[in-house]
Amino acid sequence: MTEIDVKQKILAANAAAAGELRAAFGASGTLVVNLISSPGSGKTTLLEATARALKSRLRLGGLDGDIATERDAERLRSAGIPARQILTGGACHLDARQVEKALAEEGGELAGLDVLFIENVGNLICPTTYDLGEDFKVALLSVVEGDDKPFKYPAIFARAAVTVVTKADLLPHVDFDLPAVRRQVGALNPSARLLVTSARTGNGMETWYALLEEELAAKRGAPVEALAAP
Amino acid sequence: MTEIDVKQKILAANAAAAGELRAAFGASGTLVVNLISSPGSGKTTLLEATARALKSRLRLGGLDGDIATERDAERLRSAGIPARQILTGGACHLDARQVEKALAEEGGELAGLDVLFIENVGNLICPTTYDLGEDFKVALLSVVEGDDKPFKYPAIFARAAVTVVTKADLLPHVDFDLPAVRRQVGALNPSARLLVTSARTGNGMETWYALLEEELAAKRGAPVEALAAP
Repeated sequence: MTEIDVKQKILAANAAAAGELRAAFGASGTLVVNLISSPGSGKTTLLEATARALKSRLRLGGLDGDIATERDAERLRSAGIPARQILTGGACHLDARQVEKALAEEGGELAGLDVLFIENVGNLICPTTYDLGEDFKVALLSVVEGDDKPFKYPAIFARAAVTVVTKADLLPHVDFDLPAVRRQVGALNPSARLLVTSARTGNGMETWYALLEEELAAKRGAPVEALAAP
Repeated sequence: MTEIDVKQKILAANAAAAGELRAAFGASGTLVVNLISSPGSGKTTLLEATARALKSRLRLGGLDGDIATERDAERLRSAGIPARQILTGGACHLDARQVEKALAEEGGELAGLDVLFIENVGNLICPTTYDLGEDFKVALLSVVEGDDKPFKYPAIFARAAVTVVTKADLLPHVDFDLPAVRRQVGALNPSARLLVTSARTGNGMETWYALLEEELAAKRGAPVEALAAP
């Protein structure tokens, strides 16, 4: 068996597990968002702000993939939502079986959520091809990482339905050509949405919250106003 | 053959190729530095500044690994040193055979260098276990990525002889606990050197240049003053 055979076998097994997850999330009406970015782009910070803003209206939870430490799940719990860390044992991405296992072990707290955030391992490459049963992928890009990244890491920006530009409060201090990023993302994925946010100042965050509520309502075939409070 | 068998076979083949590279670099007295970081931590920016500062004294060259685009090698050539892009075809790291092939194809320009910089694919995880025949690895961490990264990505910070903290000019605008990073890196690798730099302002860069010259002199068993000019 060659390296390529092994990879294809792994991806086929992952796709089967992801299909099971997607069916379960469909039955429970849970919107599942798979967040992918470099280390330090602000995934956890975005989710902390989201938890604080939406937890009174929606049941939110998180799964946090990392090589080491429980830090990210602790941060989400401190922000008031249930969260579980998945340590990948060195692997540079989460896979669908790990998500299944974490949900099964966690039991009650992560069942029946309105929105489940899956914070992938900090990596712009490896997580791209592993379906986790999500409704959509979100790619994050901080303004400090440079405006050439979509074309340098095209696979994730082509697959992410939403690109969130983060740390926009630092724009005055860095060289970052936002229109160039918009053009690159648009070329890779014409239907992608691009949001510009600063979790620190709150700028742009309302658009992100509205997007989540709209996607949840669309999944449930219900108007946004009818979304259940906990 | 299992996934683990395949990985071990790949790493064994890589180690053999890396050994050949290391012998060749030893014979030519070329110091080889393997730079590893997240996307956007400032590897290319560090090398542009290094090229401009040292190219009158030392023969420098670069190999730039990426998933896509020729941008990084173009930036180094614009800074006045020979450089060649290696496109990895989707792989999240360089391997020793790719380095061998690129050097063989490039021929003259990258032969007989004083210092060869290998800028790995932007990734804190995958490049860690692939020996490229380098003298040492350098891990870069920008102050915007957060002060929790060494413990979250321990393998690279344990293996890098040098950690370069980058974009220090942004320290006034972010929460970044430098002593905490120093403690984490020290715990993972007690002999590691940690430099704090801003390629934009030049702060800390002289220490980086001096480190390169000292390492080159040590490799050649000669005093720094005796290093050849081009």
